[in-house]
Amino acid sequence: MPIVHIHMLEGRNVDQKRELVRSMTEAVVNSVDAPPERVHIVIHEMKRENFAEAGILNSEA
Amino acid sequence: MPIVHIHMLEGRNVDQKRELVRSMTEAVVNSVDAPPERVHIVIHEMKRENFAEAGILNSEA
Amino acid sequence: MPIVHIHMLEGRNVDQKRELVRSMTEAVVNSVDAPPERVHIVIHEMKRENFAEAGILNSEA
Amino acid sequence: MPIVHIHMLEGRNVDQKRELVRSMTEAVVNSVDAPPERVHIVIHEMKRENFAEAGILNSEA
Amino acid sequence: MPIVHIHMLEGRNVDQKRELVRSMTEAVVNSVDAPPERVHIVIHEMKRENFAEAGILNSEA
Amino acid sequence: MPIVHIHMLEGRNVDQKRELVRSMTEAVVNSVDAPPERVHIVIHEMKRENFAEAGILNSEA
Repeated sequence: MPIVHIHMLEGRNVDQKRELVRSMTEAVVNSVDAPPERVHIVIHEMKRENFAEAGILNSEA
Repeated sequence: MPIVHIHMLEGRNVDQKRELVRSMTEAVVNSVDAPPERVHIVIHEMKRENFAEAGILNSEA
Repeated sequence: MPIVHIHMLEGRNVDQKRELVRSMTEAVVNSVDAPPERVHIVIHEMKRENFAEAGILNSEA
Repeated sequence: MPIVHIHMLEGRNVDQKRELVRSMTEAVVNSVDAPPERVHIVIHEMKRENFAEAGILNSEA
Repeated sequence: MPIVHIHMLEGRNVDQKRELVRSMTEAVVNSVDAPPERVHIVIHEMKRENFAEAGILNSEA
Repeated sequence: MPIVHIHMLEGRNVDQKRELVRSMTEAVVNSVDAPPERVHIVIHEMKRENFAEAGILNSEA
C-alpha cells in the first residue's frame, strides 16, 4: 500500500507501461511519503467498446 | 465523475453495451443531477470461471 | 452479478440514492437481460478533496 | 454482499480457482457471519506486464 | 499481489476484521500458492443506504 | 479516462493530496500520451484497521 488501479484503453506498449509505473510510483513516493517498495500498481486495459462517456461508447464517439 | 464500474459476464454484444451505457447514464443524470458529459462508465467483462457465488464458480453452477 | 460500483461526490440524500439504484437496476435489467435480483450496486461517496480532474482537486476547482 | 474482488497474475487453472472461491467464501462466512449465498467473488486476472511493485513491472522484476 | 478488496456493511468489530484477514489470507495462500507476505487486503465498509440489491437500498429492504 | 483509483491510509492533508494528484496526472500524461483533462483520480482513504498485509491488520502490525 498505497495500491493504485489505473483503467485505460488498450494499445499502450511495454515501454509506455514501464514509464507509467516508474513515474506514477515516483509521484506517490514524493507526495505522500510512502516507501517505493510499498507502492503497488495494477493496470486494467479496456477495449474501446467497454468505456463510455456521456452515454456514448468510446468505440462510437 | 460520477464514475461507474460494472462487472458482468462476457458475451453481451455491442448493441447491448450501447443500450447499457445510454440507459445507465440517463439513470444517473436523472437521479443525482449530474451533467451527462461527467458520467464515465467502465465495463469489466468476466469469464464464467472468474465469478463465484456461495463459493461455487459460475461455470460450475 | 452484474455488480455495479458507482463513485460520486458525497451530499446526495436517501431519496436520490433510492431513485439512483432503482433506475440503474432497471437500466441493467432491460439492456443486458439480467434478472433484477442479481443486480448488486455499491455506492462509494467521496469528499471533494478526494476527487481530481486534470490534476486539480475538485475542492479547489 | 459481501462482494470480494481479487486481482492476481494470470496462469491459475480452474482447480485452483475452485478451491480459491470455496475457501475464501468459507473464511468470510466464518469471520463476519454472512450467509454463504450472499458472498460474491470476482477474480481479475492480470498479465505480468500489468502489475508493478516499487515502480518495476512484474514482467521485468 | 494478490490484492483483495472486500466490500461489506459497516458494523464489524476489530476482532472480526482480524479473523477475516487472517483466514482470507490463508485461503489465498493455500489455493493459489502465493507467499503470505504478498497478499494485500483492503476492507471497504459501506453504510446500509449505500448498498442495493434488486433495485432496493439495503437500509429499506 | 484514464481513471485512477488510489487506496492509501488516511491522514494525509490537503497539501499532500494536491501534490499527489498534480504529479500523478503529469506522470500519466507524459507516459501514455493522454490529455490532462481526461485524467480522473479518485482517492480512497482507509483506516489502519481496514488494511492488511500477510494476514495482519495494519493497526496491529
